[in-house]
Amino acid sequence: MEANLRLGEFIENIEQAITDLRNGKFILIYDDDCREGETDLVIASEFVTPESIKTMRKDGGGLIFLMISQDVANKLKLPFLADLFSHTTDKYPVLKELIPNDIPYDAKSSFSVYVNHRKTFTGITDIDRSLTMKRFAELARNIENLNDGHAMRLFGKEFRSPGHVPICVAVEKLLDERKGHTELVVSMMKMAKLTPAGSGCEIMGDAGKALPKDKVKKYAHEHGLAFLEGNEIVDAWEKWSK
Amino acid sequence: MEANLRLGEFIENIEQAITDLRNGKFILIYDDDCREGETDLVIASEFVTPESIKTMRKDGGGLIFLMISQDVANKLKLPFLADLFSHTTDKYPVLKELIPNDIPYDAKSSFSVYVNHRKTFTGITDIDRSLTMKRFAELARNIENLNDGHAMRLFGKEFRSPGHVPICVAVEKLLDERKGHTELVVSMMKMAKLTPAGSGCEIMGDAGKALPKDKVKKYAHEHGLAFLEGNEIVDAWEKWSK
Repeated sequence: MEANLRLGEFIENIEQAITDLRNGKFILIYDDDCREGETDLVIASEFVTPESIKTMRKDGGGLIFLMISQDVANKLKLPFLADLFSHTTDKYPVLKELIPNDIPYDAKSSFSVYVNHRKTFTGITDIDRSLTMKRFAELARNIENLNDGHAMRLFGKEFRSPGHVPICVAVEKLLDERKGHTELVVSMMKMAKLTPAGSGCEIMGDAGKALPKDKVKKYAHEHGLAFLEGNEIVDAWEKWSK
Repeated sequence: MEANLRLGEFIENIEQAITDLRNGKFILIYDDDCREGETDLVIASEFVTPESIKTMRKDGGGLIFLMISQDVANKLKLPFLADLFSHTTDKYPVLKELIPNDIPYDAKSSFSVYVNHRKTFTGITDIDRSLTMKRFAELARNIENLNDGHAMRLFGKEFRSPGHVPICVAVEKLLDERKGHTELVVSMMKMAKLTPAGSGCEIMGDAGKALPKDKVKKYAHEHGLAFLEGNEIVDAWEKWSK
């Protein structure tokens, strides 16, 4: 009985989060006590507005970034920055010195390039960052049936790099391979049948660190937002993807 | 008489800002109505604490970044990202599509790589970003008399890339060549005889854009911070550097 109740609560929680994402609302995703121990404010990129960026910078305070599936990155031939750096160490030997071989909670950096939409001005205002994110999601949806070369050219027609919006790319096998925010978010987008591009920002606390989980839960309650932990998403994903 | 009074005020304003920087206080730098039209909260990187990062993300809300002199970048052999990208278009053709040849207010992007100190955990918390910035300033001071290879290795021993702290590099001739925040800030550091590494963050407003100048002045007044416009720094620099 208690197990059933817990299962019911668990499904309700995931379903509520999926509904919220589909309605353009924020949800909160905490990865894991044994990983970063951070919560991200997350929203489907296709619904991002200047107001969303403001919420992320005011209530989050971390990096405001895009998370996309490897399918989208492959279509656009987007490299991981770490790979790009390791291929250019002959010309830029400093990149060899800076190799990120000691990330405490992970084996590999998810960062690809930083972009701005070409119609942005400085690139950093709420209006500019929301334009970059929303249009990126639209592009990701539109290129699904295009060949890679064509997709890449459409990308370059609308976006430039360097820019102010970092793109993190999920690993191919998603949660079977890595359980970072990028994979958690892209899996949620897939389960919600949304374009696999999410926007997020880590929530900082007042003590120099990430906001502790209990305080995030309080924030979720006060703002009527769904709060998910990584393992809930992993469980749901296993059921959904099999 | 009036001209003398204005000159007096002007010198006082710059001198106060230099004193504040030397005391580890924030100053406010507005570039120009005809450029970005943005104000950055600026502090000497050597004095950055977790509290400074918190102030930048709460009262600023833009990108929290490092600005360094070209001398320091040369010692570390740090490339501009735009140059790095343009040298790797054979292997990564998407970078050719993304070429930033249409920045509305400038000819060239100042972005170099993003770094984290190797002793950071996620890299994004106030504690982590302040460690990255403060230690970068210490490194910049310590490498002054080292040869390039040695400086570069010391850099890699302490820092990794990709990371969460973007480095912007000033042009060699500073304000004679470009009048962006990076050059304005590095010039202020030089006039203040501080390590040429500044930390800054653009101040966003509630309407989706940068906080308007009159509201920034109000913020400056309320917080007892010096407010400078780009042309004041350019004038002072011309006198100081000749």
